[in-house]
Amino acid sequence: MGLTVAQLAERLGAELVGDGSGQINAVGPIETAGKNEVTFISDDKHIAALEKSGAGAVIAASRTEGFAGPQLLVKNVDSALIEALNIFAPKLKVPPTGIDPTAKIGRDVKIAAGVSVGPVVVIDDGVEIGENSIIAAGCKIGQNSKLGKNCRLDSNVVVYHNCTIGNNVVIQANTTIGSTGFGYSFIDGSHKLIPHNGVVVIEDYVEIGANCCVDRAKFGETRIGAGTKIDNLVQIAHNVVIGKCCLLAGMVGISGSCKLGDGVVLAGQVGLADNIEIGDGVIVGAQSGLFRNVAAGQQLFGYPAIDKREMMRVIGLTRRLPKLIERLKQLTVRIESIEAAENDKK
Amino acid sequence: MGLTVAQLAERLGAELVGDGSGQINAVGPIETAGKNEVTFISDDKHIAALEKSGAGAVIAASRTEGFAGPQLLVKNVDSALIEALNIFAPKLKVPPTGIDPTAKIGRDVKIAAGVSVGPVVVIDDGVEIGENSIIAAGCKIGQNSKLGKNCRLDSNVVVYHNCTIGNNVVIQANTTIGSTGFGYSFIDGSHKLIPHNGVVVIEDYVEIGANCCVDRAKFGETRIGAGTKIDNLVQIAHNVVIGKCCLLAGMVGISGSCKLGDGVVLAGQVGLADNIEIGDGVIVGAQSGLFRNVAAGQQLFGYPAIDKREMMRVIGLTRRLPKLIERLKQLTVRIESIEAAENDKK
Amino acid sequence: MGLTVAQLAERLGAELVGDGSGQINAVGPIETAGKNEVTFISDDKHIAALEKSGAGAVIAASRTEGFAGPQLLVKNVDSALIEALNIFAPKLKVPPTGIDPTAKIGRDVKIAAGVSVGPVVVIDDGVEIGENSIIAAGCKIGQNSKLGKNCRLDSNVVVYHNCTIGNNVVIQANTTIGSTGFGYSFIDGSHKLIPHNGVVVIEDYVEIGANCCVDRAKFGETRIGAGTKIDNLVQIAHNVVIGKCCLLAGMVGISGSCKLGDGVVLAGQVGLADNIEIGDGVIVGAQSGLFRNVAAGQQLFGYPAIDKREMMRVIGLTRRLPKLIERLKQLTVRIESIEAAENDKK
Repeated sequence: MGLTVAQLAERLGAELVGDGSGQINAVGPIETAGKNEVTFISDDKHIAALEKSGAGAVIAASRTEGFAGPQLLVKNVDSALIEALNIFAPKLKVPPTGIDPTAKIGRDVKIAAGVSVGPVVVIDDGVEIGENSIIAAGCKIGQNSKLGKNCRLDSNVVVYHNCTIGNNVVIQANTTIGSTGFGYSFIDGSHKLIPHNGVVVIEDYVEIGANCCVDRAKFGETRIGAGTKIDNLVQIAHNVVIGKCCLLAGMVGISGSCKLGDGVVLAGQVGLADNIEIGDGVIVGAQSGLFRNVAAGQQLFGYPAIDKREMMRVIGLTRRLPKLIERLKQLTVRIESIEAAENDKK
Repeated sequence: MGLTVAQLAERLGAELVGDGSGQINAVGPIETAGKNEVTFISDDKHIAALEKSGAGAVIAASRTEGFAGPQLLVKNVDSALIEALNIFAPKLKVPPTGIDPTAKIGRDVKIAAGVSVGPVVVIDDGVEIGENSIIAAGCKIGQNSKLGKNCRLDSNVVVYHNCTIGNNVVIQANTTIGSTGFGYSFIDGSHKLIPHNGVVVIEDYVEIGANCCVDRAKFGETRIGAGTKIDNLVQIAHNVVIGKCCLLAGMVGISGSCKLGDGVVLAGQVGLADNIEIGDGVIVGAQSGLFRNVAAGQQLFGYPAIDKREMMRVIGLTRRLPKLIERLKQLTVRIESIEAAENDKK
Repeated sequence: MGLTVAQLAERLGAELVGDGSGQINAVGPIETAGKNEVTFISDDKHIAALEKSGAGAVIAASRTEGFAGPQLLVKNVDSALIEALNIFAPKLKVPPTGIDPTAKIGRDVKIAAGVSVGPVVVIDDGVEIGENSIIAAGCKIGQNSKLGKNCRLDSNVVVYHNCTIGNNVVIQANTTIGSTGFGYSFIDGSHKLIPHNGVVVIEDYVEIGANCCVDRAKFGETRIGAGTKIDNLVQIAHNVVIGKCCLLAGMVGISGSCKLGDGVVLAGQVGLADNIEIGDGVIVGAQSGLFRNVAAGQQLFGYPAIDKREMMRVIGLTRRLPKLIERLKQLTVRIESIEAAENDKK
């Protein structure tokens, strides 16, 4: 799949500066892109690298004098990059529409037009799947769960019973949706499971990575808001409610009944204690541990997490503790010297 | 599935205070329960919320004057709640007894009466499964592994060879039992795997969440004690021995050859270095990192973890470091002033 | 499977000191090994335990006077231990060569001699699998992915399209290779996925534990260097490049575009922020969080991680903060006393 630089410019709606005759077959990073690759610059700090780049063309917001090759000027580099990546995406066979003969489909299942159900998929009674959704090989969907249209469940995803998944949702391989949460009462000398009658609701345009877990609610629902994106190996406990357009990076753990507002960003390995509320737009740095409610707009860091700037200062000071103690010793010596002088006078 | 309040009281063995004629269809939380839902109160701090609740009835240990609806008085609210949740659990089709025709069963396999083996399950030679156990779709059980009765393996669980699982054990979807542990010797310039001849033993009434890993032992066994409950995405390394009735929350990681006593509670994302011993009843706060043995009954927190109360004090003081340094500066100024005065006198 | 001590000595190429007539059936740890088990001693600190051991024989580098049983003296105890564990490994039926009839194989698939493809495996178009590799039950291999020879994919492993796996690679159950990474651009009010055109390359002799995730690159490749070993529940993000012979313990998380040199060791639950470079031979303690580049040979610890020895000192001092503040108070009192005396003189 190749395009000339001029053809690519046209596809991207870009202004072409320079020679449009070169051949482009792929997108590549500034450092390694060759003459048949288009690269991109989304931050001025990469200008020096761009000037040395061997890329056959660059997608940019404005012209860089030092880059000799052709430049494709666009309003939104991110958007044009996505388009270019789509143009040069590896060609893959589309999963065939219809139900693979090795799939096992229960009673009262409604499968809409254009759906692809892959090999050895198991779909239980009462399930509904909307138009054009793709259920890859090895998935299991429990009783009465409902998927919207244009969804994609990758291989070996497990969705338990009574879950609701919206439209345009992507769930990657080996992820589990609707498992029973970790709720026990200690009665008569042993931990008794609290039955989980509740459900999971995943709204439109949510994307969930591989090997994640989303537990169903004890009662009511665990809910993931529209447009929220979740990385791999993330844990969402029972009765958690996540707002819209949040970003949860890899290995984040959210304990039971937490409530996240819209646009919350949790970096990798962040953990939230149970029952806390996180306001809209909160940003939490990697590996932080949250034990309290957080007001909207805060930036947090640390274990336990506090205001990020304050935490950076505290961390800096702890690392100066050896010097601090040295200063304390010196002060003590000076005081002793003054005291001794006082005593001498007496 | 509905009951009148009076019928529900009878089922729960509760003393009914108030009108028993209302209809109850579900359990709901205090804040959102409607007139056809029963709620519960397990802590006096929720009394204010209960007084405002629109629930059709409440399960409680003692009467709350401010709640106008009918009250179901019981000795143990937790226990009655579990019973109520079971009564109103969503009705699901029970997995059919017998072996699905798409399952693949090896030689010398013993499957007891009442067992359900789901679609595309693979059971290797020499496996034994006890009465009434349910092996859901897509599970793989390795050679010679033995499951007790009343177990439930959810979809896509993998159990390797020679593992022993007791009675009434639940393992949720996508969990792996009996994988080879992370044990290497560096010989002649490369890491050579130490063969794992050992096994995994999971005792009665253990419950393990989704997407967990329990490694087999190098020699001897990895063991999880009776009644221990394990949340999602938990890692149990080779040769770990866990006592009875422990609680391991989500994303806990236990390194090789650790020994946990009975009743140990590890909160989310806690990590244990290898070869440490944790006494009975130890409670460890979220995200803590343990590098040393811990005596029975301790409460720990922090990274590295120490006594919880001490750690809270240390954390509080580190956050006062900016003020501390300010005080140190002021003291220095005062000493300089004294020294200057002394010098003036000379 | 038993051997006499003399036979075992011969198999291990060991010098036999003592009686060779005893029967050995297994390897056991010093503390619990019985008379039909051989144990081993790899560190002098275990000599006292060895002297009390009931083992039927010991593998050792040099003679221990206090141990009464036969001793098998070898140059490399680690190497002999591995050999002994292999000798006494539990006997398992080898997976049959050939393609199970329930496997589903796409077009233009090349499967070499000696390969075993298990039940309900799904292999897409254009896949190639090298000699003697074992694809266990339930695996899914995406279009055009290539595996070398002598590989072992355990049950339910998912490999997406266009991935390249070398020779002698082991991937344990429920692991996901080649999932789309967590890369989004915020455009017009929502997070848009950056297409992941890149691939995953796993070099020879890499071993990956259970329930791990290795994301494919946005462009170019995610690469795991030859001989690197990875524990369970590890996350490797898009465009990460890992060198040769690294060790990544359980629950390690490596963010996008990180570069690790050769021989890097990351202990359990360590996290790396994106785009950082870790030099050859760096060793990072458990639960550490890395946010900056690290030069070769460093030993790091902490959150955020710094030089390990410095961090241990800082941690020690933070825990002395209560005493430090006490000292500061005392100094203040002494200064006040001096100041008061000065004032009296005026």
